[in-house]
Amino acid sequence: MNHFFNVKTLEEVSSLVEIFPAVDREIIDVADACSRILAADLTAGRDMPGFRRATMDGYAVHAASTYGASESSPAWLELVGSIRMGQVPDFELAPGQAAPISTGGMLPKGADSVVMVEHTEAVDEGSVEIYKSVAPLQHVIDASEDFARDQTVLADGTFIRPQEAGLAAGLGFSKLEVYQVPRVGIISTGDEIIPITQEPVPGKIRDINSYTLAGFIEEAHALPVRYGIIKDNPAALKKACERALGECDMVLISGGSSVGTRDYTVEVLSSLADTQVLVHGMSVSPGKPTILAKSANKPVWGLPGQVVSAMVVVKIIVIPFLQRLQGYKEPVRQIRIPAKLTRNVASAQGRRDFVRVMLEKWPLENSPLEKNPLEPGPCRMLARPVLGKSGLIRTMIYADGLLEIGEHVEGLEKDTLVDIILL
Amino acid sequence: MNHFFNVKTLEEVSSLVEIFPAVDREIIDVADACSRILAADLTAGRDMPGFRRATMDGYAVHAASTYGASESSPAWLELVGSIRMGQVPDFELAPGQAAPISTGGMLPKGADSVVMVEHTEAVDEGSVEIYKSVAPLQHVIDASEDFARDQTVLADGTFIRPQEAGLAAGLGFSKLEVYQVPRVGIISTGDEIIPITQEPVPGKIRDINSYTLAGFIEEAHALPVRYGIIKDNPAALKKACERALGECDMVLISGGSSVGTRDYTVEVLSSLADTQVLVHGMSVSPGKPTILAKSANKPVWGLPGQVVSAMVVVKIIVIPFLQRLQGYKEPVRQIRIPAKLTRNVASAQGRRDFVRVMLEKWPLENSPLEKNPLEPGPCRMLARPVLGKSGLIRTMIYADGLLEIGEHVEGLEKDTLVDIILL
Repeated sequence: MNHFFNVKTLEEVSSLVEIFPAVDREIIDVADACSRILAADLTAGRDMPGFRRATMDGYAVHAASTYGASESSPAWLELVGSIRMGQVPDFELAPGQAAPISTGGMLPKGADSVVMVEHTEAVDEGSVEIYKSVAPLQHVIDASEDFARDQTVLADGTFIRPQEAGLAAGLGFSKLEVYQVPRVGIISTGDEIIPITQEPVPGKIRDINSYTLAGFIEEAHALPVRYGIIKDNPAALKKACERALGECDMVLISGGSSVGTRDYTVEVLSSLADTQVLVHGMSVSPGKPTILAKSANKPVWGLPGQVVSAMVVVKIIVIPFLQRLQGYKEPVRQIRIPAKLTRNVASAQGRRDFVRVMLEKWPLENSPLEKNPLEPGPCRMLARPVLGKSGLIRTMIYADGLLEIGEHVEGLEKDTLVDIILL
Repeated sequence: MNHFFNVKTLEEVSSLVEIFPAVDREIIDVADACSRILAADLTAGRDMPGFRRATMDGYAVHAASTYGASESSPAWLELVGSIRMGQVPDFELAPGQAAPISTGGMLPKGADSVVMVEHTEAVDEGSVEIYKSVAPLQHVIDASEDFARDQTVLADGTFIRPQEAGLAAGLGFSKLEVYQVPRVGIISTGDEIIPITQEPVPGKIRDINSYTLAGFIEEAHALPVRYGIIKDNPAALKKACERALGECDMVLISGGSSVGTRDYTVEVLSSLADTQVLVHGMSVSPGKPTILAKSANKPVWGLPGQVVSAMVVVKIIVIPFLQRLQGYKEPVRQIRIPAKLTRNVASAQGRRDFVRVMLEKWPLENSPLEKNPLEPGPCRMLARPVLGKSGLIRTMIYADGLLEIGEHVEGLEKDTLVDIILL
């Protein structure tokens, strides 16, 4: 069988994400919703906060009663009423009057603003002097100022951060409709691979990929399901694939690195019902021997057996497919850190290279960006390429990130400003 | 009681992290170790990979037998033996001989390098032509090239990423000693706060802080424990604090926003056994009314009741303390994204300001950093300050990050290059 008969660029592989649907939805408790993806628009059932609320400790007033007030010419206001937290004030405030109020308290009818306590002085039990004027709605949040009733506050496909969970809770959504957590099956193949609890004899190595790949899946907020180690045997691999496809939303098969296994993977994938091999080879280094198939509506990946290559492929291209399954409506912005390259880096044309780099702080005395070392300033980092063969896991241990070099670039010179994908 | 009698700068508060110890250790399965912190140095018990291994498909050779080989003048080598994946070759390779090998296979005794299959042509069943010379150890990982026996491969205090978990697995550590997951108690206080399942009448608002704060704790890989809502009552708050301190490693009390509650918190904390209030007010905006106490060896925080302020304080200062408890040996690098400010931003001197901003892509035509739009290039982002009062949760919903402005800066001008703390 011809190897790499269907080699695609990273862009071509990325564009295939479109053909896979998101997983099903489910209803969960809002307390468990962080890091999930909202699966329905969320509409405010009521105004938020729902009443006119003080944002400072001070006095509720008619703003107009304070106009012109200053240190030298304070406004004198009559003290009325008492506002208890969480209670509706049982009085109405007239012009010329003031009522003490705490942050979060409800303004009495008639009051439109709050004078901060720092700008007042209580004269006696019945009156207060105001040293600074306020404008209407100053130091106040109005009834519908945060969100108004019937407003769509969060959209289908939103990643739920703590603040989105808090907003949903604040609007009374104790349950939320979200996308399920995709299950990702992980199969290690290869006659040389043994379980980590066994002591390897020469020729054998322990199963690293099951652990690294599961880690990346967890990091992306999905659920890894390990199917263990399958020997280089097409029938066994087919059986494991069918089982994993029956139980999971995506399957990763990390090759046993042998030529035989690589052929087996394509052969086995081609023999599965309703399955089509879409990619067989990717013009990416490391990661060329990558396979992508569509089985029913699920992605199945054949990953390089080399531990570093498998990790890079998962980080760079598998995770965006996982995000599609998770219900994201558009590609998630990958976090990149700008840095200055410490040395020349070579790269082959026609291939997308991912170079492991360490990130180091840029010494202040050499930084042209530095203005005032006492102040928080723009990011200053050096990207130092990690030396060592690409098959060495230590290169991934020492690396803080990946430097992406495009197909049309022959290499990058020392001191080039690049941005680094964090690992 | 005097408010803010002990106002500290952010640096002063940060330096207090030193007085708190890490939580206890525990032994867990390596499959569960991602995002945990290693609590002991990890030393390789054996060489890794442990044998001389091919990193390419091709032929195992003596490098010297290939010297001078080229397309026009190939080296002719005798084919011997067969190397099965995961097996020790049962023959020795002599100069002038070659043996077919797959990636990951073990080199036979005598062989020191691999010629890639692309640079060879099998002549007949007994011989192969080599078109390119190789150097000793080319396309090979030597027995101890990844890690050598007795080498410390990971240090106490290391955050376990997928690659660290994989390395530990590869070295046969099926169990790892890690720091426990800190438990963080969360108490909401305030007479105006009601559970999210209740419908608020005017004056009341639902408990948002319990959900946002728990979200940030989870995001930092710790375990939030909710203690519900405590009314503005010192005895009830003391009881809740004592319970939370008995069960957790750190406690967050988010104030009910009222002056009374704030006093109660300091009063209650001061009344607890073996407890000292270290911070009462922080020159940070939002977040000034922040309290930090040390109860036995545990940090207890009094956070502003305002939802935005509470979130900012947790993100900026509580999380670094949590990381100390988690076993990190030094402060964790906060991820910051450089961006260009879209407008002037004012800031008060003597106060560390955190301004919510949206991040937007910098249109290519305006970017001086752009060299070749087809290639991955340095980060191009605009930071657009989010308008709206600081008490509005929607400002945190719209925000992608926080812009930090130092105590000695009066404000920042439009187009300043800043870096943004991601939310």
